[in-house]
Amino acid sequence: MKHAVTFTLIKTDSRTAARRGCVHTPHGDIQTPVFMPVGTQATVKAMKPETVAGLGHEGARILLSNTYHLYLRPGHELVKKAGGLHKFMNWNGAILTDSGGFQVFSLGKLRKISEEGVRFQSYIDGSRHMFTPEKSIEVQQALGADIIMAFDECAPYPSERKYVEQSLELTTRWLARCKARHDNTEKQSLFGIMQGGTFKDLRRRSAEQITEMDLPGYGIGGLSVGEPKELMYDVLGDCTQYLPKDRPRYLMGVGSPDCLFEGVERGVDMFDCVLPTRVARNGQAFTSHGKVNIKNAQYFDDMTPLDPECDCYVCRNYSRAYLRSLFVNREILSAMLLSEHNLHFLVRTMENIRKAIDEDRFTEYKREFFEKYGEF
Amino acid sequence: MKHAVTFTLIKTDSRTAARRGCVHTPHGDIQTPVFMPVGTQATVKAMKPETVAGLGHEGARILLSNTYHLYLRPGHELVKKAGGLHKFMNWNGAILTDSGGFQVFSLGKLRKISEEGVRFQSYIDGSRHMFTPEKSIEVQQALGADIIMAFDECAPYPSERKYVEQSLELTTRWLARCKARHDNTEKQSLFGIMQGGTFKDLRRRSAEQITEMDLPGYGIGGLSVGEPKELMYDVLGDCTQYLPKDRPRYLMGVGSPDCLFEGVERGVDMFDCVLPTRVARNGQAFTSHGKVNIKNAQYFDDMTPLDPECDCYVCRNYSRAYLRSLFVNREILSAMLLSEHNLHFLVRTMENIRKAIDEDRFTEYKREFFEKYGEF
Repeated sequence: MKHAVTFTLIKTDSRTAARRGCVHTPHGDIQTPVFMPVGTQATVKAMKPETVAGLGHEGARILLSNTYHLYLRPGHELVKKAGGLHKFMNWNGAILTDSGGFQVFSLGKLRKISEEGVRFQSYIDGSRHMFTPEKSIEVQQALGADIIMAFDECAPYPSERKYVEQSLELTTRWLARCKARHDNTEKQSLFGIMQGGTFKDLRRRSAEQITEMDLPGYGIGGLSVGEPKELMYDVLGDCTQYLPKDRPRYLMGVGSPDCLFEGVERGVDMFDCVLPTRVARNGQAFTSHGKVNIKNAQYFDDMTPLDPECDCYVCRNYSRAYLRSLFVNREILSAMLLSEHNLHFLVRTMENIRKAIDEDRFTEYKREFFEKYGEF
Repeated sequence: MKHAVTFTLIKTDSRTAARRGCVHTPHGDIQTPVFMPVGTQATVKAMKPETVAGLGHEGARILLSNTYHLYLRPGHELVKKAGGLHKFMNWNGAILTDSGGFQVFSLGKLRKISEEGVRFQSYIDGSRHMFTPEKSIEVQQALGADIIMAFDECAPYPSERKYVEQSLELTTRWLARCKARHDNTEKQSLFGIMQGGTFKDLRRRSAEQITEMDLPGYGIGGLSVGEPKELMYDVLGDCTQYLPKDRPRYLMGVGSPDCLFEGVERGVDMFDCVLPTRVARNGQAFTSHGKVNIKNAQYFDDMTPLDPECDCYVCRNYSRAYLRSLFVNREILSAMLLSEHNLHFLVRTMENIRKAIDEDRFTEYKREFFEKYGEF
C-alpha cells in the first residue's frame, strides 16, 4: 500500500528519547518535532493564513482543523465543493484533521455511545446526528486533509480501569473499521490512536493492537485530560516506547511550553493545542521569561516589547503599553497580535528544539529554557 | 509662518468643481481627493498598519484618529511618552486627529457647553473632564498628528437658525483661541472648521470668518448629521465655493461611496468615515455591483469572490462561501477580511476618481460607477 504520508527518522538524541524527523505529506515536508497551530473552524483564530505560514523562522507548515466543527458548520459537503479544506481556507501547507471523537464525547448528556458509534445533538440547533468510524472517515475524506485521525473513544480522567479497558478495545475495533473504510490512502493517511488512560499495561495493550494494523502514524490520545502533569509525563514515557520508531507519534491536544519539552524528551514528534491562541484572546502572552498578562496595570506605560528576546513581528513593532491599550479597549488587533506572538513563540521554540537535537544538546537547551522561563 | 502641511492644486475638472491636488505633510505626500481610514483608538479596527498601508494600488497614506478616545484611554501623555501616535501605533504615514468636539457634543446629558469650553463625564468611569480649545490643542500636540483640527461646536440637524448662528460664532471664537494656543506650526498644521448647518448664508459667514485666519486647510463640519442627502449635497455645493482654492477641503465624517463622488464633484479633497470598517464587522461589503450582506443564505455555497471585479487580497483568495462561514461562526478573521476589502474598495475607488480627473473624465467615471453599483 502506498501511503500519502511517510516519515523519515533523522536522528535520536544520545541521552533522551528526543528525535529529529521529517513527515512527508502531499503538501510539503514537516520537520519534527513540530507544534501544529489549530484552525478549528477553517481559520487559525485572528490570523491570516500567510501570517501562520510566516511564523518562526521557517514558518508553520502544518495546521490542525476540527472535523466535528466543520461537519456541523459549514458542512463537509460544502468544503468538498470548494475543492477541499486547503483551497477553502487558502492554506497551501499540510493539514491534519481530528476525527470528531473527542468533541462528541465532550458533549456529555447530548451524546450516546454504542458499538456502532455515537449519537449526538448539535450544540448549534439541537439537530440529531450520528458519528461512526465510517462516517468520520467519510467526512474527513470530504475535507481532504493530508493526515486524518481514527475515530476513537477518549476516556476521561479519572475513570475506572474496567471502563478504560473497554474503551481502548472499542477504539481498536473502530480503528479497524476506519481502516477498512479508508480507500484513498494515496491522498490521505490515516493515523491510529492509542488509548488506555493512565494504566501502563492498558497503554501497552492498545499500542500492540493498533500498531498491528501498520498505519503511517500514531496518535497518543487520552492524556492531558485532567490528570496531574507528573502522572501524564510518567505514562507518556511508556507510551512512546510501545510505538514503532519509524512512524511519527502525535501527542494530541497538548501544547503548553513545558509539555512540549517533556513530550519531545519522551519521543513525541507532533503536538497541537488551542492554548496559545485562546490565552492570547484573554490577554496572556508566552515570553522567554514566563507568562505576561498584558492587562496588568504595571504595563500601562511599559515601552518595552512583549518579549525583549523575541524577534517576531509583534515584538519588533509594538510596546507592552500599546498592546495593553488595545486589550483594554477590546480591539480586535489585540487578539491578532497576541495570537501571532504566542504561536511564533511556540513555533520558534520548536525550531530551537530541533536545532538542539541536531547538535545533541537538547538537555542543555531544555535546562536553559526552563531556567529563564521560570515557574509554569 | 511656515506650515507643516501645504497643498498643491494640480488640476480642476473642466465640467465640475472636482479637483486633483496633493497635501504635503511631514509624513509624506497625500494625493487628493483622498479617503482616510479611521483608527479611533490608535488602530484601524481589525487591521495591521501594514495592511492599511497596502490598500488600493498606491496604499493608504493618511489615517484619522480620535482625540477624545485617546485622551480618555490610554491618555495623551502616555502616547507622548511613547514618542507620539505614529510610533505608538506603528504607522509611518500621515495622521489627522479630530479635536474631540464632535464626540463630547454627542454625549448629550453627560456634557455642558459654555464660552470657555465643554464639561463632560467619561463614558468609561464617569470621571469629570473639561475640553477647551486650548486643551484640545494641547492634547493634539501630545498626540503629534500631522494635521490637527480646531475645537468646534457641531449643531445637530434639525436646529433652530438662532442656535446654529450662535454655534458658528462660538466655533469662530474658539478657532481664534486654538490658533493662539497652537505654537508648533512647523510640526503640525491646524485646520479650521466651517459650521452653519443647512443655512447657506450662515455657511458663507462661517467661511468668511475662518478663512480670515489664513489656515493651511479647512474642514466642513456639521454635514451628514441627519439631514436628507439631497439637502446635504445642495449645501455642500455652496460651502466649497466659499473656501479658498489653494487650501485642502475636508468633509468630516463622510465616506459612503455615493457621498465620495458627490463630495468630489463639489470640490472636496479629503474624507473620512468609520462606515467601511463598521459595516464590515456586521458582515456588509461594498462591491462594484452594490452592497453584499455576507450572512445571507444565498452565499452559503457561492464559490465566487466577494467582488469579482476587485483585485484586493480578499477577493483574490477567498470565496463568498468561506467568508459567510467565517461570519456565521463569529470568527475574527471575518472582521479582518471584510474590513480590508471595504477599505480597499473605497481607497481604490478614490484612486480611480483621481485618475478620472487627471484624464478629464470624472463625470463619465461617476456615471459608470453608479450604473454598476445601483441603488444606495
